[in-house]
Amino acid sequence: MAQPARLGRGGRWGRGRLSPVAPMEPTAEQAARWRPWMRRALQLAALGQGRTSPNPMVGCVVLDSSGQLVGEGFHAQAGHPHAEVGALGQAGARAEGGTAIVTLEPCCHQGRTPPCSQALLAAGVGRVVVAMVDPDPRVAGQGLAQLQDAGVEVLAGICGQEARHLNRAFIHRVSTGRPLGLLKWAMSLDGRTALPNGSSQWISGPEARTWVHRLRGQVDAVIVGGGTLRADDPLLTSRGLGPREPLRVVLSQTLDLPPQRKLWDQSLAQTLVVHGPDASAQGRQQLDQLGVERLELDPCTPVTVLEALAQRGCNQVLWECGPALAAEALGQGCVQQLAAVIAPKLLGGVAARTPLGDLGLVDVNEAQQWGLQGVERLGADWLWQLNNSPRAIQS
Amino acid sequence: MAQPARLGRGGRWGRGRLSPVAPMEPTAEQAARWRPWMRRALQLAALGQGRTSPNPMVGCVVLDSSGQLVGEGFHAQAGHPHAEVGALGQAGARAEGGTAIVTLEPCCHQGRTPPCSQALLAAGVGRVVVAMVDPDPRVAGQGLAQLQDAGVEVLAGICGQEARHLNRAFIHRVSTGRPLGLLKWAMSLDGRTALPNGSSQWISGPEARTWVHRLRGQVDAVIVGGGTLRADDPLLTSRGLGPREPLRVVLSQTLDLPPQRKLWDQSLAQTLVVHGPDASAQGRQQLDQLGVERLELDPCTPVTVLEALAQRGCNQVLWECGPALAAEALGQGCVQQLAAVIAPKLLGGVAARTPLGDLGLVDVNEAQQWGLQGVERLGADWLWQLNNSPRAIQS
Repeated sequence: MAQPARLGRGGRWGRGRLSPVAPMEPTAEQAARWRPWMRRALQLAALGQGRTSPNPMVGCVVLDSSGQLVGEGFHAQAGHPHAEVGALGQAGARAEGGTAIVTLEPCCHQGRTPPCSQALLAAGVGRVVVAMVDPDPRVAGQGLAQLQDAGVEVLAGICGQEARHLNRAFIHRVSTGRPLGLLKWAMSLDGRTALPNGSSQWISGPEARTWVHRLRGQVDAVIVGGGTLRADDPLLTSRGLGPREPLRVVLSQTLDLPPQRKLWDQSLAQTLVVHGPDASAQGRQQLDQLGVERLELDPCTPVTVLEALAQRGCNQVLWECGPALAAEALGQGCVQQLAAVIAPKLLGGVAARTPLGDLGLVDVNEAQQWGLQGVERLGADWLWQLNNSPRAIQS
Repeated sequence: MAQPARLGRGGRWGRGRLSPVAPMEPTAEQAARWRPWMRRALQLAALGQGRTSPNPMVGCVVLDSSGQLVGEGFHAQAGHPHAEVGALGQAGARAEGGTAIVTLEPCCHQGRTPPCSQALLAAGVGRVVVAMVDPDPRVAGQGLAQLQDAGVEVLAGICGQEARHLNRAFIHRVSTGRPLGLLKWAMSLDGRTALPNGSSQWISGPEARTWVHRLRGQVDAVIVGGGTLRADDPLLTSRGLGPREPLRVVLSQTLDLPPQRKLWDQSLAQTLVVHGPDASAQGRQQLDQLGVERLELDPCTPVTVLEALAQRGCNQVLWECGPALAAEALGQGCVQQLAAVIAPKLLGGVAARTPLGDLGLVDVNEAQQWGLQGVERLGADWLWQLNNSPRAIQS
């Protein structure tokens, strides 16, 4: 059950730009009345999954003054109309005196599309119900304030928890300047990601690999290190299972990379190689000749790579790297979610690869406890999904 | 749902000692009639868990000729009366013309207690229903044959699958000459059983440790190697949570063992050190002075240790050893069940300990697929239980 966010005086509103009239905190009765419509709006929002970055997913439902559904919309892709515009367009004149239920506070700034707060006012809606305030500093409460100032009744915090969960990547990027990081690996029950001789295809079964392909289509970028590129020559695409292909990112300090790699063929998906200042001239030249985009960062670290990807509008990245880079990304706070596929097999091997390199711990009690979000069967394998929030599922 | 075992002509009966009249295979109607009583008998049998070795767990229910319950019994401990004797004792004269429902074929040989087939005949029961034939070569169908020859109606195979599962350790020991092996470990989500500096207390939480203590009280022996003894100085008891303490077994080739170890104090539980022919004279002398029993085996391997423990009446052993001995035990077919406690933590560490040493695999596809029997939450941790049968649970 969603807890309506505590809004009103103080705290979460927009940095001193708070309207004199704060939006009403919903009563239990109001929450019960609007929750079913907000759930529908959240369903609509989720239709944009994997295609809206750098924007959030947004859904909108418009009811006429008698409470009848007259319009639905969602944000399908960055640069396309916002959810409110689509729903208001369907509603037409019937929106007048009606209610707009939106999963996120309407924007109030001119971006690639006009401000939605103005569109709602122009349509004459009498009430706007939102799930959460937009954390984007260009909005941050001002969209709701504009509506209130114009006499529109505003309710905020209906299904707030679900809405924040849906847009957790967008919220993370806006509030930290880095995309949300998901670290994924497949391992045997004894914690091995390869045999001592490097053999690793395939530890997990076809269902688990399909799950990974689908996941790639929903994130904005997939990151590997030079070692994975050299050893595995991965393709890193969704195999057509996602709404679009992710940006494939290689983090290589040296640019000591082979001339023949699947990633150099960009007919399926774009490739970006990020490197440090000490990268070899030969490596730079090779990539330039191959037509592969490269980006020099100083220093070239998981953090600086994520900052560069946030600049390019990535809300969420998938780390599919080897143990050393994975441990570095974890150590730099670049991982908020884990997905471990565990195969019911034993690989063994004293020198066999494991998911993570050294994290620098000296006492087991220093290890952070991750919150298990779910365990799911994928064929013969089991997917564990965890995040770094203290709230784990209850059994 | 249990499948009645296919009995009757051929196959599973006792090695040429087959009675001319084979016990009836139950019809669906008969199976439906006796299944509820057999489930009760199985519940009774399980009351002996952890205390019957080298014997199986057995439960018995006696009904009078009108089908009323008149007696219940179970085998509580080796050397104590068998289940049938207890149930018949309760029933007294009311057993005459009645039915005995027993989880295992009644014995027909004089052991520490008289044969149960004779006790059933003496009580005058008209029908005996059993879940499974006793795989012990001294019985192996002859108990049922004796009853049939005396004119008793015999039905076999009611709840056979449950009964075989309950006594899987006994069946394994009788049919292979070695106790059933369960390999257990606790690891982090990245497959580590210690940090690079050896720190491992505690990877799992109190609930998981309690589960292990309880498990120790239900197996006949717990086995560690000399390395674990030197590094961890474990106690290896049930902490009073099991019906009795297991035999604590140390496998050490060299007997290079410290003079001060918790295992040398045998006030709580017995300790046995198994060693090879090359063990040092000093090591032998130290143990003898400490009053710790030792057993020389040539060769001293997981297999020979298990054979020696079977001779001592162990049906089930728990391997709580380090990665090298665990891999050796697996490689020699000494492990039929796995229990992995996975903590939602990341430990990392290039040189950190993992559950298993080298298994000698060169291709991932050689790895055996284990059958997942269940995933269970233990506090913050998750227990995975698997066995080496091809049948896994369905999700």
